[in-house]
Amino acid sequence: MKVVALAGGVGGAKMASGLYQILPPEDLTIIVNVGDDFEHLGLKICPDLDTVCYTLAEIAHPVTGWGREDESWNAFESLAELGGPVWFRLGDRDLGTHLERTHLLARGCRLSQVTEQFCRAWGVDSRVFPVSDDPIPTLVLTDEGQLSFQEYFVRRQCHPRVTGFKFEGIEKARPVPEVLQALEEAQVVVICPSNPWVSIDPILKVSGVRALLKAHHPTDHRAVLAISPIIAGEAVKGPAAKMYTEFGVKPSALAVAQHYGEQTKGGILTGFVFDTVDTNHLEAMQALRLKTLITDTVMKTPADRRRLAEEVIAFGFDLIAT
Amino acid sequence: MKVVALAGGVGGAKMASGLYQILPPEDLTIIVNVGDDFEHLGLKICPDLDTVCYTLAEIAHPVTGWGREDESWNAFESLAELGGPVWFRLGDRDLGTHLERTHLLARGCRLSQVTEQFCRAWGVDSRVFPVSDDPIPTLVLTDEGQLSFQEYFVRRQCHPRVTGFKFEGIEKARPVPEVLQALEEAQVVVICPSNPWVSIDPILKVSGVRALLKAHHPTDHRAVLAISPIIAGEAVKGPAAKMYTEFGVKPSALAVAQHYGEQTKGGILTGFVFDTVDTNHLEAMQALRLKTLITDTVMKTPADRRRLAEEVIAFGFDLIAT
Repeated sequence: MKVVALAGGVGGAKMASGLYQILPPEDLTIIVNVGDDFEHLGLKICPDLDTVCYTLAEIAHPVTGWGREDESWNAFESLAELGGPVWFRLGDRDLGTHLERTHLLARGCRLSQVTEQFCRAWGVDSRVFPVSDDPIPTLVLTDEGQLSFQEYFVRRQCHPRVTGFKFEGIEKARPVPEVLQALEEAQVVVICPSNPWVSIDPILKVSGVRALLKAHHPTDHRAVLAISPIIAGEAVKGPAAKMYTEFGVKPSALAVAQHYGEQTKGGILTGFVFDTVDTNHLEAMQALRLKTLITDTVMKTPADRRRLAEEVIAFGFDLIAT
Repeated sequence: MKVVALAGGVGGAKMASGLYQILPPEDLTIIVNVGDDFEHLGLKICPDLDTVCYTLAEIAHPVTGWGREDESWNAFESLAELGGPVWFRLGDRDLGTHLERTHLLARGCRLSQVTEQFCRAWGVDSRVFPVSDDPIPTLVLTDEGQLSFQEYFVRRQCHPRVTGFKFEGIEKARPVPEVLQALEEAQVVVICPSNPWVSIDPILKVSGVRALLKAHHPTDHRAVLAISPIIAGEAVKGPAAKMYTEFGVKPSALAVAQHYGEQTKGGILTGFVFDTVDTNHLEAMQALRLKTLITDTVMKTPADRRRLAEEVIAFGFDLIAT
């Protein structure tokens, strides 16, 4: 029973870690967004990959969800003292990751190889892959002009009004071969509660990925599920709700379901998971022909992640069986 | 009264800090070796510049003499965990320096500008300059082949037997203009107790530097003094004595004096400072026509540095006056 999770940052990492807790590690593959990746101070920084890997390895910061636990900030302090850029905070332990990654990439390693090597070192037994080894930097089009993702997200704290996105180079970006293979073999694909616009779309838009999710033969017993990152009209974390509003769409679980679409209607989903507080959307979901699971989707503790993962996987099996 | 110090690593930094304690900051310029500089993990690391600046700023590690006080090693630990290179230890605070320097150089700043900016940030009021903005990497020729300086010094702990040195690109390296100007204006030039082979020679060999030290007109009232880094046949720190031995020269204060030579005999020195334990060399020094100062040259405490600096400067004045 093979499961693939598509993940972005903190919400994605939490869902992925729930799945990692309950599945045999060899049955789980996690495909991670690279649109947030950027170069800073000459370092290649992959925020989503690191958040996912740190979380699975249980070395993530327990409060922020990103960065390392037990972190110190001495390099950053010393950099700040010298007038260096302070808009992107870099913890010392985290810096070690960026240094070694940058070093290995400069020596010709592919990002997916580096990620595998890091996972091995951190004791992460499931496979974690960037969707592509090619950079696909997200550009956020805003009323203040075009911003790199981290400029928008960190430096400007998501303040500018978004008008669109560009994923630079995505037409030419080659998917990591293991990503396509995992998607081909998956019986359950879980789209984690990550930002649909800037975490999941830049995965889906890589050549071959969406096509594999849409594949629908009579023999194709596969569930493609998404968990809504919007609960009661709000994103648990990050700018997803704000983005929907700026695009003229009321942020809601329904809007997320419509974003991905149901398979027989040209979308990719066979099922959708959303929070009990949004039960009022049930009828509209059914009109979309979506099979639904309504449950508590807020993951505050590792136990929450585990419980949600169990329910999601059981829901996926039900869909395949019927 | 203008003073210039030529300095390499820890010994040079201690002498420089003694001079910095006693002179008006605007009267002191420190010219630093860049032969040890190298790239590591994509970072531009300048060990001698950092040791000198950290020492003047009183943020150097009080025991090792290099690196920062109050240092943590979390980035390095995390790098090691990932299988990264561990032969060159990088402290967290120190990393901040390398990151910002690398960043500024990548943006087109010259190393001398970066150093000035850092000194300002660290509250160092005297001027500190790399001898050149061009890289002049020291290659150590050994019985095990040619090694980069840090490979020889750190990775191989100075074990290979040295047969010679190459300072790559030194013929074309342009001196920092302020370096030549400071040397022209200096009344006392102090060659710090640094390694003559790999700290001072790569300063002296930069175009124009040695010529300015040799300049000797009737009106040229200038003292050029060296302090022996060899005491009782041993280097206080580092491989200087081992190098002399490997070149077939008995390591001694006398060997250092001969290394630099007296001005009227084609060398650069007008005076030489060596330790009381080596008083037996006095006669040989006088045969070299060298004016000498014999005193305690071991600098264990900041007070030692200050006292030695006072004696050295007084000695320089005496030489000019006579």
